[in-house]
Amino acid sequence: MNATKARLVDVSAGLFQRRGLAATGIKEILAEAQAPFSSLYHHFPGGKDELAEAAIRSSGMQYQALVEEVWDGQDDVISSIAAVFDGASQTLEATNFVEACPIAVIALEVASTNDQLRTATAEVFEAWTMAASERLISADIATDDARRLALSIICLIEGAFVLSQAMKSTEPMRSARDTALRAIRDLLTTSA
Amino acid sequence: MNATKARLVDVSAGLFQRRGLAATGIKEILAEAQAPFSSLYHHFPGGKDELAEAAIRSSGMQYQALVEEVWDGQDDVISSIAAVFDGASQTLEATNFVEACPIAVIALEVASTNDQLRTATAEVFEAWTMAASERLISADIATDDARRLALSIICLIEGAFVLSQAMKSTEPMRSARDTALRAIRDLLTTSA
Repeated sequence: MNATKARLVDVSAGLFQRRGLAATGIKEILAEAQAPFSSLYHHFPGGKDELAEAAIRSSGMQYQALVEEVWDGQDDVISSIAAVFDGASQTLEATNFVEACPIAVIALEVASTNDQLRTATAEVFEAWTMAASERLISADIATDDARRLALSIICLIEGAFVLSQAMKSTEPMRSARDTALRAIRDLLTTSA
Repeated sequence: MNATKARLVDVSAGLFQRRGLAATGIKEILAEAQAPFSSLYHHFPGGKDELAEAAIRSSGMQYQALVEEVWDGQDDVISSIAAVFDGASQTLEATNFVEACPIAVIALEVASTNDQLRTATAEVFEAWTMAASERLISADIATDDARRLALSIICLIEGAFVLSQAMKSTEPMRSARDTALRAIRDLLTTSA
Protein backbone atom coordinates (compact mmCIF):
# COMPACT_ATOMS: atom_id res chain seq x y z
CA MET A 1 0.00 0.00 0.00
CA ASN A 2 1.14 3.54 -0.86
CA ALA A 3 2.62 5.34 2.20
CA THR A 4 0.07 8.18 2.21
CA LYS A 5 -2.80 5.74 1.80
CA ALA A 6 -1.48 3.60 4.69
CA ARG A 7 -1.09 6.71 6.87
CA LEU A 8 -4.68 7.80 6.13
CA VAL A 9 -5.93 4.34 7.17
CA ASP A 10 -3.84 4.22 10.38
CA VAL A 11 -4.72 7.76 11.47
CA SER A 12 -8.44 7.18 10.80
CA ALA A 13 -8.42 3.90 12.69
CA GLY A 14 -6.89 5.62 15.74
CA LEU A 15 -9.36 8.52 15.66
CA PHE A 16 -12.36 6.23 15.08
CA GLN A 17 -11.29 4.06 18.03
CA ARG A 18 -11.08 7.03 20.40
CA ARG A 19 -14.09 9.11 19.26
CA GLY A 20 -16.11 7.17 16.75
CA LEU A 21 -16.97 7.86 13.14
CA ALA A 22 -19.32 10.85 13.40
CA ALA A 23 -17.07 12.92 15.67
CA THR A 24 -14.04 12.48 13.39
CA GLY A 25 -13.80 15.01 10.57
CA ILE A 26 -12.00 14.56 7.27
CA LYS A 27 -9.98 17.73 7.92
CA GLU A 28 -8.70 16.29 11.19
CA ILE A 29 -7.71 13.00 9.53
CA LEU A 30 -5.83 14.84 6.74
CA ALA A 31 -4.07 17.13 9.23
CA GLU A 32 -2.93 14.26 11.47
CA ALA A 33 -1.87 12.19 8.45
CA GLN A 34 -0.11 15.25 6.94
CA ALA A 35 -1.86 14.46 3.68
CA PRO A 36 -3.30 16.91 1.12
CA PHE A 37 -7.05 16.96 0.54
CA SER A 38 -6.61 15.59 -2.99
CA SER A 39 -5.01 12.41 -1.61
CA LEU A 40 -8.24 11.38 0.13
CA TYR A 41 -10.31 11.08 -3.07
CA HIS A 42 -7.30 9.84 -5.03
CA HIS A 43 -6.88 6.84 -2.71
CA PHE A 44 -10.50 6.57 -1.59
CA PRO A 45 -12.87 7.63 -4.38
CA GLY A 46 -15.79 6.66 -2.12
CA GLY A 47 -14.68 9.30 0.42
CA LYS A 48 -15.06 8.94 4.19
CA ASP A 49 -17.08 5.68 3.99
CA GLU A 50 -14.47 3.96 1.84
CA LEU A 51 -11.70 5.17 4.15
CA ALA A 52 -13.71 4.01 7.19
CA GLU A 53 -14.22 0.57 5.65
CA ALA A 54 -10.47 0.25 5.04
CA ALA A 55 -9.78 1.39 8.63
CA ILE A 56 -12.28 -1.15 10.08
CA ARG A 57 -10.74 -4.04 8.10
CA SER A 58 -7.17 -2.97 8.80
CA SER A 59 -7.59 -2.44 12.55
CA GLY A 60 -9.67 -5.63 12.79
CA MET A 61 -6.83 -7.64 11.23
CA GLN A 62 -4.15 -5.92 13.31
CA TYR A 63 -6.04 -6.56 16.54
CA GLN A 64 -6.63 -10.19 15.56
CA ALA A 65 -2.90 -10.66 14.87
CA LEU A 66 -2.05 -9.13 18.26
CA VAL A 67 -4.51 -11.37 20.14
CA GLU A 68 -3.34 -14.46 18.24
CA GLU A 69 0.25 -13.69 19.20
CA VAL A 70 -0.74 -13.46 22.88
CA TRP A 71 -2.90 -16.61 22.62
CA ASP A 72 -0.28 -18.67 20.78
CA GLY A 73 2.45 -17.58 23.21
CA GLN A 74 0.98 -19.74 25.99
CA ASP A 75 1.26 -23.50 26.53
CA ASP A 76 -2.39 -24.34 27.13
CA VAL A 77 -5.82 -22.91 26.36
CA ILE A 78 -6.56 -21.78 29.94
CA SER A 79 -3.31 -19.76 30.08
CA SER A 80 -4.01 -18.38 26.59
CA ILE A 81 -7.45 -17.05 27.49
CA ALA A 82 -6.15 -15.64 30.79
CA ALA A 83 -3.33 -13.90 28.89
CA VAL A 84 -5.75 -12.33 26.39
CA PHE A 85 -7.87 -10.81 29.20
CA ASP A 86 -4.76 -9.77 31.16
CA GLY A 87 -3.38 -8.09 28.03
CA ALA A 88 -6.65 -6.17 27.62
CA SER A 89 -6.47 -4.98 31.27
CA GLN A 90 -2.83 -3.94 30.82
CA THR A 91 -3.62 -1.97 27.65
CA LEU A 92 -6.52 -0.18 29.37
CA GLU A 93 -4.29 0.79 32.32
CA ALA A 94 -1.30 1.75 30.18
CA THR A 95 -3.41 4.10 28.02
CA ASN A 96 -5.52 5.58 30.85
CA PHE A 97 -8.52 3.65 29.49
CA VAL A 98 -8.33 5.23 26.03
CA GLU A 99 -7.37 2.19 23.94
CA ALA A 100 -9.92 -0.59 23.89
CA CYS A 101 -11.62 -2.41 21.00
CA PRO A 102 -10.61 -0.74 17.71
CA ILE A 103 -14.02 -1.18 16.05
CA ALA A 104 -16.73 -1.29 18.74
CA VAL A 105 -17.70 2.42 18.69
CA ILE A 106 -17.96 2.47 14.92
CA ALA A 107 -19.83 -0.89 14.92
CA LEU A 108 -22.51 0.53 17.23
CA GLU A 109 -22.68 3.85 15.36
CA VAL A 110 -23.26 2.25 11.96
CA ALA A 111 -25.29 -0.82 13.03
CA SER A 112 -28.59 0.68 11.95
CA THR A 113 -27.44 3.56 9.75
CA ASN A 114 -24.81 2.36 7.24
CA ASP A 115 -25.03 -1.15 5.83
CA GLN A 116 -21.69 -1.04 4.00
CA LEU A 117 -19.79 -0.29 7.21
CA ARG A 118 -21.98 -2.58 9.33
CA THR A 119 -21.05 -5.45 6.99
CA ALA A 120 -17.34 -4.64 7.40
CA THR A 121 -17.65 -4.78 11.21
CA ALA A 122 -19.64 -8.05 10.98
CA GLU A 123 -16.89 -9.60 8.86
CA VAL A 124 -14.25 -8.60 11.40
CA PHE A 125 -16.25 -10.15 14.27
CA GLU A 126 -16.77 -13.31 12.19
CA ALA A 127 -13.02 -13.56 11.46
CA TRP A 128 -12.24 -13.21 15.18
CA THR A 129 -14.85 -15.86 16.02
CA MET A 130 -13.41 -18.30 13.47
CA ALA A 131 -9.84 -17.77 14.70
CA ALA A 132 -10.84 -18.33 18.35
CA SER A 133 -13.04 -21.35 17.46
CA GLU A 134 -10.17 -23.06 15.62
CA ARG A 135 -7.91 -22.66 18.63
CA LEU A 136 -10.60 -24.02 20.99
CA ILE A 137 -11.17 -27.02 18.69
CA SER A 138 -7.41 -27.68 18.74
CA ALA A 139 -7.73 -27.75 22.55
CA ASP A 140 -10.27 -30.61 22.25
CA ILE A 141 -13.45 -28.57 22.66
CA ALA A 142 -16.32 -29.94 20.53
CA THR A 143 -16.99 -27.89 17.36
CA ASP A 144 -20.43 -26.53 18.41
CA ASP A 145 -19.25 -25.71 21.92
CA ALA A 146 -16.12 -24.06 20.48
CA ARG A 147 -18.10 -21.58 18.38
CA ARG A 148 -20.43 -20.73 21.27
CA LEU A 149 -17.48 -20.30 23.62
CA ALA A 150 -15.52 -18.23 21.08
CA LEU A 151 -18.50 -15.88 20.65
CA SER A 152 -18.93 -15.67 24.43
CA ILE A 153 -15.27 -14.83 24.99
CA ILE A 154 -15.48 -12.04 22.40
CA CYS A 155 -18.75 -10.78 23.96
CA LEU A 156 -17.11 -10.78 27.41
CA ILE A 157 -14.09 -8.79 26.16
CA GLU A 158 -16.21 -6.34 24.15
CA GLY A 159 -18.63 -5.76 27.03
CA ALA A 160 -15.76 -5.46 29.51
CA PHE A 161 -14.13 -2.81 27.29
CA VAL A 162 -17.38 -0.79 27.41
CA LEU A 163 -17.74 -1.04 31.20
CA SER A 164 -14.02 -0.69 32.00
CA GLN A 165 -13.67 2.42 29.84
CA ALA A 166 -16.78 4.00 31.34
CA MET A 167 -15.86 3.11 34.93
CA LYS A 168 -12.10 3.73 34.43
CA SER A 169 -11.46 0.45 36.21
CA THR A 170 -10.22 -2.97 35.13
CA GLU A 171 -12.69 -4.63 37.54
CA PRO A 172 -15.16 -5.49 34.72
CA MET A 173 -12.32 -6.95 32.59
CA ARG A 174 -11.04 -9.01 35.55
CA SER A 175 -14.58 -10.26 36.27
CA ALA A 176 -15.06 -11.17 32.60
CA ARG A 177 -11.73 -13.08 32.71
CA ASP A 178 -12.96 -15.10 35.70
CA THR A 179 -16.19 -16.04 33.89
CA ALA A 180 -14.38 -16.94 30.65
CA LEU A 181 -12.02 -19.23 32.58
CA ARG A 182 -14.93 -20.89 34.41
CA ALA A 183 -16.67 -21.50 31.07
CA ILE A 184 -13.61 -23.06 29.43
CA ARG A 185 -12.84 -25.23 32.49
CA ASP A 186 -16.47 -26.39 32.53
CA LEU A 187 -16.28 -27.41 28.85
CA LEU A 188 -12.89 -29.12 29.28
CA THR A 189 -14.34 -31.18 32.16
CA THR A 190 -17.42 -32.07 30.09
CA SER A 191 -15.34 -33.12 27.07
CA ALA A 192 -12.86 -35.16 29.14
CA MET B 1 -40.98 16.90 34.72
CA ASN B 2 -42.41 19.43 32.27
CA ALA B 3 -43.88 17.72 29.15
CA THR B 4 -41.56 19.45 26.66
CA LYS B 5 -38.52 18.68 28.82
CA ALA B 6 -39.54 15.01 29.10
CA ARG B 7 -40.08 14.83 25.33
CA LEU B 8 -36.63 16.31 24.67
CA VAL B 9 -35.07 13.67 26.94
CA ASP B 10 -37.01 10.76 25.40
CA VAL B 11 -36.36 11.81 21.81
CA SER B 12 -32.65 12.36 22.49
CA ALA B 13 -32.33 8.99 24.22
CA GLY B 14 -33.84 7.25 21.18
CA LEU B 15 -31.61 9.06 18.69
CA PHE B 16 -28.47 8.55 20.80
CA GLN B 17 -29.24 4.82 21.07
CA ARG B 18 -29.59 4.43 17.30
CA ARG B 19 -26.80 6.73 16.04
CA GLY B 20 -24.75 7.94 18.95
CA LEU B 21 -24.10 11.42 20.30
CA ALA B 22 -21.99 12.98 17.55
CA ALA B 23 -24.29 12.02 14.68
CA THR B 24 -27.36 13.47 16.41
CA GLY B 25 -27.92 17.17 15.83
CA ILE B 26 -29.82 19.56 18.06
CA LYS B 27 -32.06 20.56 15.14
CA GLU B 28 -33.10 16.96 14.63
CA ILE B 29 -33.89 16.50 18.33
CA LEU B 30 -36.00 19.67 18.38
CA ALA B 31 -37.84 18.68 15.19
CA GLU B 32 -38.65 15.18 16.42
CA ALA B 33 -39.69 16.51 19.85
CA GLN B 34 -41.74 19.28 18.17
CA ALA B 35 -40.08 21.73 20.53
CA PRO B 36 -38.94 25.31 19.80
CA PHE B 37 -35.22 26.11 19.91
CA SER B 38 -35.72 28.31 22.99
CA SER B 39 -36.99 25.31 24.97
CA LEU B 40 -33.63 23.56 24.76
CA TYR B 41 -31.67 26.24 26.66
CA HIS B 42 -34.65 26.99 28.89
CA HIS B 43 -34.74 23.39 30.16
CA PHE B 44 -31.05 22.58 29.64
CA PRO B 45 -28.90 25.69 30.16
CA GLY B 46 -25.83 23.49 29.63
CA GLY B 47 -27.04 22.69 26.09
CA LYS B 48 -26.45 19.37 24.34
CA ASP B 49 -24.20 17.94 27.08
CA GLU B 50 -26.76 18.60 29.80
CA LEU B 51 -29.51 17.09 27.65
CA ALA B 52 -27.29 14.08 26.89
CA GLU B 53 -26.58 13.57 30.59
CA ALA B 54 -30.32 13.62 31.35
CA ALA B 55 -30.93 11.16 28.47
CA ILE B 56 -28.20 8.77 29.71
CA ARG B 57 -29.57 8.75 33.27
CA SER B 58 -33.20 8.46 32.15
CA SER B 59 -32.66 5.63 29.65
CA GLY B 60 -30.32 3.88 32.11
CA MET B 61 -33.07 3.89 34.76
CA GLN B 62 -35.79 2.85 32.30
CA TYR B 63 -33.71 -0.05 31.00
CA GLN B 64 -32.90 -1.14 34.55
CA ALA B 65 -36.60 -1.11 35.48
CA LEU B 66 -37.41 -3.19 32.39
CA VAL B 67 -34.71 -5.79 33.14
CA GLU B 68 -35.72 -5.94 36.82
CA GLU B 69 -39.33 -6.62 35.81
CA VAL B 70 -38.19 -9.51 33.58
CA TRP B 71 -35.81 -10.83 36.27
CA ASP B 72 -38.35 -10.58 39.12
CA GLY B 73 -41.05 -12.25 37.00
CA GLN B 74 -39.29 -15.63 37.24
CA ASP B 75 -39.25 -18.12 40.09
CA ASP B 76 -35.52 -18.82 40.33
CA VAL B 77 -32.25 -17.13 39.43
CA ILE B 78 -31.46 -19.46 36.48
CA SER B 79 -34.83 -18.74 34.86
CA SER B 80 -34.40 -15.02 35.57
CA ILE B 81 -31.03 -14.79 33.80
CA ALA B 82 -32.29 -16.90 30.89
CA ALA B 83 -35.32 -14.58 30.58
CA VAL B 84 -33.14 -11.45 30.52
CA PHE B 85 -31.03 -12.82 27.63
CA ASP B 86 -34.12 -14.15 25.83
CA GLY B 87 -35.75 -10.75 26.18
CA ALA B 88 -32.67 -9.10 24.65
CA SER B 89 -32.78 -11.53 21.69
CA GLN B 90 -36.50 -10.89 21.20
CA THR B 91 -36.01 -7.11 21.24
CA LEU B 92 -33.19 -7.37 18.68
CA GLU B 93 -35.35 -9.47 16.37
CA ALA B 94 -38.51 -7.41 16.85
CA THR B 95 -36.68 -4.17 15.97
CA ASN B 96 -34.57 -5.57 13.09
CA PHE B 97 -31.47 -5.23 15.33
CA VAL B 98 -31.95 -1.50 15.88
CA GLU B 99 -32.75 -1.46 19.61
CA ALA B 100 -29.99 -2.70 21.87
CA CYS B 101 -28.28 -1.12 24.87
CA PRO B 102 -29.55 2.45 25.30
CA ILE B 103 -26.20 3.88 26.43
CA ALA B 104 -23.37 1.77 24.94
CA VAL B 105 -22.72 3.89 21.83
CA ILE B 106 -22.61 7.10 23.81
CA ALA B 107 -20.49 5.43 26.54
CA LEU B 108 -17.83 4.48 23.99
CA GLU B 109 -17.99 7.84 22.20
CA VAL B 110 -17.44 9.88 25.38
CA ALA B 111 -15.13 7.48 27.28
CA SER B 112 -12.00 9.45 26.48
CA THR B 113 -13.47 12.76 25.31
CA ASN B 114 -16.11 14.02 27.79
CA ASP B 115 -15.67 13.32 31.48
CA GLN B 116 -19.10 14.67 32.53
CA LEU B 117 -20.90 12.23 30.24
CA ARG B 118 -18.44 9.38 30.92
CA THR B 119 -19.25 9.72 34.63
CA ALA B 120 -22.98 9.53 33.90
CA THR B 121 -22.51 6.28 31.93
CA ALA B 122 -20.28 4.86 34.70
CA GLU B 123 -22.99 5.61 37.27
CA VAL B 124 -25.59 3.80 35.16
CA PHE B 125 -23.36 0.71 34.82
CA GLU B 126 -22.68 0.80 38.58
CA ALA B 127 -26.42 0.99 39.35
CA TRP B 128 -27.08 -2.01 37.06
CA THR B 129 -24.24 -3.94 38.70
CA MET B 130 -25.59 -3.23 42.21
CA ALA B 131 -29.13 -4.26 41.25
CA ALA B 132 -27.94 -7.54 39.70
CA SER B 133 -25.55 -8.24 42.62
CA GLU B 134 -28.36 -7.84 45.17
CA ARG B 135 -30.50 -10.33 43.29
CA LEU B 136 -27.62 -12.84 43.05
CA ILE B 137 -26.91 -12.48 46.77
CA SER B 138 -30.62 -13.18 47.47
CA ALA B 139 -30.12 -16.39 45.46
CA ASP B 140 -27.39 -17.47 47.90
CA ILE B 141 -24.35 -16.46 45.83
CA ALA B 142 -21.50 -15.18 48.03
CA THR B 143 -21.11 -11.38 48.00
CA ASP B 144 -17.75 -11.27 46.13
CA ASP B 145 -18.83 -13.86 43.59
CA ALA B 146 -22.14 -12.00 43.12
CA ARG B 147 -20.45 -8.75 42.10
CA ARG B 148 -18.07 -10.56 39.71
CA LEU B 149 -20.95 -12.51 38.21
CA ALA B 150 -23.17 -9.42 37.94
CA LEU B 151 -20.41 -7.56 36.07
CA SER B 152 -19.83 -10.58 33.82
CA ILE B 153 -23.52 -10.89 32.96
CA ILE B 154 -23.64 -7.20 32.03
CA CYS B 155 -20.40 -7.57 29.99
CA LEU B 156 -21.90 -10.59 28.19
CA ILE B 157 -25.11 -8.72 27.33
CA GLU B 158 -23.26 -5.55 26.27
CA GLY B 159 -20.79 -7.46 24.12
CA ALA B 160 -23.56 -9.60 22.65
CA PHE B 161 -25.48 -6.45 21.69
CA VAL B 162 -22.39 -5.20 19.80
CA LEU B 163 -21.86 -8.49 17.94
CA SER B 164 -25.55 -9.26 17.37
CA GLN B 165 -26.24 -5.80 15.95
CA ALA B 166 -23.20 -5.96 13.67
CA MET B 167 -23.90 -9.54 12.51
CA LYS B 168 -27.71 -9.07 12.42
CA SER B 169 -28.02 -12.37 14.24
CA THR B 170 -29.04 -13.41 17.75
CA GLU B 171 -26.36 -16.12 17.72
CA PRO B 172 -23.94 -14.03 19.86
CA MET B 173 -26.75 -13.25 22.37
CA ARG B 174 -27.73 -16.94 22.55
CA SER B 175 -24.08 -17.95 23.05
CA ALA B 176 -23.69 -15.33 25.78
CA ARG B 177 -26.85 -16.71 27.46
CA ASP B 178 -25.34 -20.20 27.50
CA THR B 179 -22.12 -18.93 29.13
CA ALA B 180 -24.00 -16.84 31.72
CA LEU B 181 -26.10 -19.88 32.70
CA ARG B 182 -22.98 -22.07 32.96
CA ALA B 183 -21.35 -19.45 35.21
CA ILE B 184 -24.36 -19.17 37.55
CA ARG B 185 -24.81 -22.97 37.74
CA ASP B 186 -21.11 -23.34 38.55
CA LEU B 187 -21.38 -20.80 41.39
CA LEU B 188 -24.59 -22.36 42.75
CA THR B 189 -22.86 -25.77 42.85
CA THR B 190 -19.80 -24.27 44.57
CA SER B 191 -21.93 -22.47 47.18
CA ALA B 192 -24.13 -25.51 47.89
